[in-house]
Amino acid sequence: MAKNAIIGQSGGPTSVINSSLAGVFQACENRGADNIYGMCNGLHGLLDKNIVDLKRTLLSSLEIELLKRTPSAYLGSCRYKLPHYEKDTYIYDKIFQILNELEIEWFFYIGGNDSMDTICKLSDYAKENNSSIKFMGVPKTIDNDLMITDHTPGYGSAAKYIGVVMKEIVRDATVYDTPYVTVVEIMGRNAGWLTAAATLSKSDDCEGVDMLCLPEVPFDTDKFLTKTEALLNNQKSIVIAVSEGVKLTDGRYVCELSDDTRFTDAFGHKNLTGTARYLSNQIMKKLGTKARSVELSTLQRCAGHVTSRTDITEAYQVGGAAAKAAFEGHTGEMIALKRISNDPYQCTTQPHDIHKVANFEKKIPLEWINETYTDMLPVFHQYARPLIQAELTPIYINGLPRHIYLKEL
Amino acid sequence: MAKNAIIGQSGGPTSVINSSLAGVFQACENRGADNIYGMCNGLHGLLDKNIVDLKRTLLSSLEIELLKRTPSAYLGSCRYKLPHYEKDTYIYDKIFQILNELEIEWFFYIGGNDSMDTICKLSDYAKENNSSIKFMGVPKTIDNDLMITDHTPGYGSAAKYIGVVMKEIVRDATVYDTPYVTVVEIMGRNAGWLTAAATLSKSDDCEGVDMLCLPEVPFDTDKFLTKTEALLNNQKSIVIAVSEGVKLTDGRYVCELSDDTRFTDAFGHKNLTGTARYLSNQIMKKLGTKARSVELSTLQRCAGHVTSRTDITEAYQVGGAAAKAAFEGHTGEMIALKRISNDPYQCTTQPHDIHKVANFEKKIPLEWINETYTDMLPVFHQYARPLIQAELTPIYINGLPRHIYLKEL
Repeated sequence: MAKNAIIGQSGGPTSVINSSLAGVFQACENRGADNIYGMCNGLHGLLDKNIVDLKRTLLSSLEIELLKRTPSAYLGSCRYKLPHYEKDTYIYDKIFQILNELEIEWFFYIGGNDSMDTICKLSDYAKENNSSIKFMGVPKTIDNDLMITDHTPGYGSAAKYIGVVMKEIVRDATVYDTPYVTVVEIMGRNAGWLTAAATLSKSDDCEGVDMLCLPEVPFDTDKFLTKTEALLNNQKSIVIAVSEGVKLTDGRYVCELSDDTRFTDAFGHKNLTGTARYLSNQIMKKLGTKARSVELSTLQRCAGHVTSRTDITEAYQVGGAAAKAAFEGHTGEMIALKRISNDPYQCTTQPHDIHKVANFEKKIPLEWINETYTDMLPVFHQYARPLIQAELTPIYINGLPRHIYLKEL
Repeated sequence: MAKNAIIGQSGGPTSVINSSLAGVFQACENRGADNIYGMCNGLHGLLDKNIVDLKRTLLSSLEIELLKRTPSAYLGSCRYKLPHYEKDTYIYDKIFQILNELEIEWFFYIGGNDSMDTICKLSDYAKENNSSIKFMGVPKTIDNDLMITDHTPGYGSAAKYIGVVMKEIVRDATVYDTPYVTVVEIMGRNAGWLTAAATLSKSDDCEGVDMLCLPEVPFDTDKFLTKTEALLNNQKSIVIAVSEGVKLTDGRYVCELSDDTRFTDAFGHKNLTGTARYLSNQIMKKLGTKARSVELSTLQRCAGHVTSRTDITEAYQVGGAAAKAAFEGHTGEMIALKRISNDPYQCTTQPHDIHKVANFEKKIPLEWINETYTDMLPVFHQYARPLIQAELTPIYINGLPRHIYLKEL
């Protein structure tokens, strides 16, 4: 009987989730997995038996290098919420039937909070039903909101991208000699890690951002306008970084004050956009100052052309560590990053019980934010700066970065 | 009496306008200008005598390298429309009085259509009033809409940026296995050069974009929805690139159909945003398909972290050629780029009478667009592909690209 591995990717795309796929794949290959399968579109593809043989699609070490440099999810993704198995065993029976048919011994799921919930449930079900399949979670999310791990693969590259473009937006915003407010909307539903990364732009060659609005702090439109007006008394160009997830004290998202159609995904998450547009319109109406909004939108999660080499390397490492742990018999765990030292920056991997990760959210500690909730304190920069160090240069062909993609998807 | 040069930057920022500044500055220095001044915020700064001595602010060859890699306008910019001098000589008298006080012999203005209008009027006035000051225009605009020149410095880098991020957006958009339309809004008020650059993303590692909406072609919302629906019959993920400037047959901009506050600048240009948002909302409402909008917004003009080396080099060259021409006695001219050959790509500079440039707009020839107006023909790719070749790597310090900026601004 063959001993096979299967890998899935789930949740929102990042610039480094494919580096984790490369890490799991190469470690499984080196440890002697007979076949290494990829689920197309995560559990959706598994349930449809939409499976690829990765040894046949990733043919060379050059292709592995391209995989590391290709953003989004090579295997496709899904947003699929497993029901609890006490409520619905049908879907579990089907999943395990397919895994047994495929002679799967090791199961890897690369993703964020929702994906860790999937690993948690599948490994619990396996233990209760005497299945020997090992289930390992590989963390990935630009949001950096997973518990236990020092940070999540994907955050460093998104933070670097945000730092890079905030510097460029600040330069762009200071070009005219008239009052001008730029409101930049950054991802992060409940945790402000990405918005906080906008403060990395401040240095002796850049004025940085003038105000943060973090989802950890209740938002008040009047106070926001007062603070903006005070800033405008001292300088012409104001750049403000707001999280898409800022909420009023009554719990409504600020973007719900605007008029756009909104949609809700399978996990009940609202589609949050329009916060910056609403606020820049308020500034124009109430303060009579020219204002614009910039949504970093999907570019902040898929900008493979500007990634942190530290992040890409760690994403690869957590993939390899997950394979190592699974081959050594671990199950129901996620590989966490553990910071050993800040100066020089050193980080190792450690497996952790998935029950302590799934369905919790890590927010920014309030003591890392300044008194007026408008800026980050140095402790944040000590934490985040090492994560954006160094670059992984794209391989440019004919003027554009080369990617790899799965035509079967 | 000293013989001095003065340089101004005007109009919207680009990634390469500072490379042209470097080109003018170094050529003036090499040709023996006594002083080289910069106007802060273009003509606004000149009128306020807000002037910097560039030999004192650009101190080393390293700083020149940083200048070439810093997006936006080092000297600041303005949007200032000179009245015709037959209507208002006051402002002309004031400008020439200041230029004479500063002992200016050579005047350079780096910008787009409106800036060439400024050079045109100032040089005409100088000739009629026996002033010996030489006025030269240095072309710059991401929009590529200037006449005479084969292309404009700034276009190549913006086109490269658009090609890069469209590849990434296409990867991001194909990640789920459900129908999904992404509408990407790209700059270009009346000319579709930038939107057309989205088609550069198509290659054997990328599906490319599925539809273009260019401002050269009247827009019909119903036909747009019919085409989108037809595309959705064949594939799950659709990526559409629309120009911010697409107009209905009655002349209204599509974005005027949405509900946002709009403003008008000093040249009477409307602030165009919301086209993609309006269209993605229409797709959701009328076709019942999930859709999102992405505005490339200001990032497409200020992404100094991904520039075309071809473009940066040419921007530097037109700056140097402008100085050469002015020192040789030319005035009332713009330096144009003249393509000598496509394979291998070769381009030279040529001075041209500014009257043939100012206030004209170069649009995409309709014969470069396919029959259904949804894609570009190979002739466009032969034209545009050479312009995005090669990269100018940022100098990364502590994880972010290093810039240079003028604290006096």
